[in-house]
Amino acid sequence: MDEAGFGEGALRVVVLGGDGFCGWPTALHLSACGHDVTIVDNFARRAAEVELGAQSLTPIQTLATRVEAWREVTGRELGFYEIDVARDYDALLELLADERPDAVVHFAEQRAAPYSMKSSRHKRYTVDNNVNATHNLLAALVEADLDSHVVHLGTMGVYGYGTAGVTIPEGYLRVRMDADDGSEVEQEILFPANPGSVYHLTKTQDQLLFAFYNRNDELRITDLHQGIVWGTQTGETRLDERLVNRFDYDGDYGTVLNRFLMQAAIGYPLTVHGTGGQTRAFIHLQDTVRCIRLAVEHPPERGERVRIFNQMTETHRVIELAELVSELTGAPIDRVDNPRKEASDNDLAADNRRLLNLGLEPTFLRNDLLREVTEVAERYLHRCDRNKIPCRSRWVRERVRFARSAAGAAVTGP
Amino acid sequence: MDEAGFGEGALRVVVLGGDGFCGWPTALHLSACGHDVTIVDNFARRAAEVELGAQSLTPIQTLATRVEAWREVTGRELGFYEIDVARDYDALLELLADERPDAVVHFAEQRAAPYSMKSSRHKRYTVDNNVNATHNLLAALVEADLDSHVVHLGTMGVYGYGTAGVTIPEGYLRVRMDADDGSEVEQEILFPANPGSVYHLTKTQDQLLFAFYNRNDELRITDLHQGIVWGTQTGETRLDERLVNRFDYDGDYGTVLNRFLMQAAIGYPLTVHGTGGQTRAFIHLQDTVRCIRLAVEHPPERGERVRIFNQMTETHRVIELAELVSELTGAPIDRVDNPRKEASDNDLAADNRRLLNLGLEPTFLRNDLLREVTEVAERYLHRCDRNKIPCRSRWVRERVRFARSAAGAAVTGP
Repeated sequence: MDEAGFGEGALRVVVLGGDGFCGWPTALHLSACGHDVTIVDNFARRAAEVELGAQSLTPIQTLATRVEAWREVTGRELGFYEIDVARDYDALLELLADERPDAVVHFAEQRAAPYSMKSSRHKRYTVDNNVNATHNLLAALVEADLDSHVVHLGTMGVYGYGTAGVTIPEGYLRVRMDADDGSEVEQEILFPANPGSVYHLTKTQDQLLFAFYNRNDELRITDLHQGIVWGTQTGETRLDERLVNRFDYDGDYGTVLNRFLMQAAIGYPLTVHGTGGQTRAFIHLQDTVRCIRLAVEHPPERGERVRIFNQMTETHRVIELAELVSELTGAPIDRVDNPRKEASDNDLAADNRRLLNLGLEPTFLRNDLLREVTEVAERYLHRCDRNKIPCRSRWVRERVRFARSAAGAAVTGP
Repeated sequence: MDEAGFGEGALRVVVLGGDGFCGWPTALHLSACGHDVTIVDNFARRAAEVELGAQSLTPIQTLATRVEAWREVTGRELGFYEIDVARDYDALLELLADERPDAVVHFAEQRAAPYSMKSSRHKRYTVDNNVNATHNLLAALVEADLDSHVVHLGTMGVYGYGTAGVTIPEGYLRVRMDADDGSEVEQEILFPANPGSVYHLTKTQDQLLFAFYNRNDELRITDLHQGIVWGTQTGETRLDERLVNRFDYDGDYGTVLNRFLMQAAIGYPLTVHGTGGQTRAFIHLQDTVRCIRLAVEHPPERGERVRIFNQMTETHRVIELAELVSELTGAPIDRVDNPRKEASDNDLAADNRRLLNLGLEPTFLRNDLLREVTEVAERYLHRCDRNKIPCRSRWVRERVRFARSAAGAAVTGP
């Protein structure tokens, strides 16, 4: 598929949460590929920066500056509306009715597992925001009688992290059970959910919303169960420093890999929880935006059930990541207790053939991680706030005691 | 189990939604059995009466009058707090921290399937209210560090109405699947959900909330998957007319049976949707309150997974109900098109041994329905608003056309 000048096949795409970590580079990539993009955001992620006192390592610009820079660099316009999708249904409905988008890419959810577990207020915000945002979108499409394709960012984390030797299929699992007459019945079901945080929980609730609206109202939906995204920049965000994407390294929003990179950059040991045997799925941000474009350009038919892709390209144990970063930077590795209620070791295998079949060519960690070290961690090291390296989220009822409370790095979502 | 004077075993019980159709008789029954009961309600059901212009056939009194009558008749006190559980978290938290209840019975949800499908606003209210109410309760118990047993009213409807020859187990289903190495793996999963309305959908989302908080915080939870409740009065609500329970017969809140009873009472034919082959599970209100008491008095152990009971005592096809009412009243039966997206015929078998084992002795329709005709439908016929008999909820995107729009009776939840 040609990335430049999609031309006559241009689609009208609304990106909910289009100012965020995945949303911004997605909006740019879709725009670069010739699609007509409108961003919706309520700047919740920027508000959380203020709340947490934790800024992006990279100097992200206001959305107005970003949009203007994109126009200067490419001559392309990005629409923008400030709407709280979870709270201001009427504005969302009006926008959708006016724009009549071919696709809506839905990132308008609180996306950090540790943030979702910080306190009762954070749990409640995450459930209230995420469930209502998704439901408002679905209800608005029905009310406006639109057939827009919904492309949602889900997470591999809905499955939990113990899959008992069964490769996670792309969404649906064939199971057999005993019928009353003694025969065996086969059924295809959603892969059973086992979320590990309130954030992940909301994504399992989203799945039920999608299944219902797909069946009841024939909404066309693609749910991309994403692995942990790594990498900061894409082809488009590199075009001008004003387009730079965010890089989080605090205990709430920083992914495990970003936190290793920052620990290495400031000379901390890399903190691994427990054995580091937890296996996670990963995808580079560049592949994320390509996958979303592929999903947008290949919508399901009306009447087709919810499409589920496993949006990941490789799996690694946390200890392997630490070893890789250690190899590149020389940082030592340190083990601490795990604050999460999870298996200390697990295998994870997932089927991702649908995306590969659509033409995705993955960027692998081993080949591109050094670029992340030099292009981001070292380049912007002067902006690092060293107080943000420890993680202080309280996962379960009992207060967690870290072996070394100043050095607990969280394995952040998805 | 002795129903009168539980005495030393008295439990502190908070009943959320304790002014409603199931909540009120539950509060009375628990109080009559010696428990110390506090009612929490926001009067949402009474507000919906005003919204819909559809009153209870029975002359229900204000909660203040009800509580006073109960005191007069039995000498027992009922506590009361007006709290919107979904919106006023702080008040809920304060109440729970003060009362430190042994059990919280949670009815604080919008409970009508047709109401949940009336419009986008009703869909959104149902999701927002039900998901946040349940989540606020769970988050508050964790924040207040309480071990209160949560007894929730779920619905048989989470399963959908096509179970392919498999008896619905009490919550968990053993399934077999193929592992990557060619072996067969067995796993116990939540019975796969297939909700037929936004109301039912929220109950499937509740299940995920319960599973998470049970696993993460060891909350003790019993989820009662209830069939359609029939009957209006219980031993306690009959003690004084001021204690009378509500009887709904409008297209939104009236169950199929109540609507048949009112159609018969005013001389309408009984309207059956499609073939009337839809099988539903039923339970008498008297059994409902007994089941809830049994659940309250038999809490799970800490660390035990969510207990799921199928709170139903018999199943019937809708046409059989119509025939039964026709037999008792002489009303003719009329068939109309079905507005719901559901199979025209289905079987339904569910396991309810756990409740029978706890000592429930069911009240069956065939034995007690005549009492409902004389005690309620005929007795309060003078209060009937004939305009409320037709049903006008719009289930799917396309506007539904009734074969006889003036006579469409809905098969209401659960």
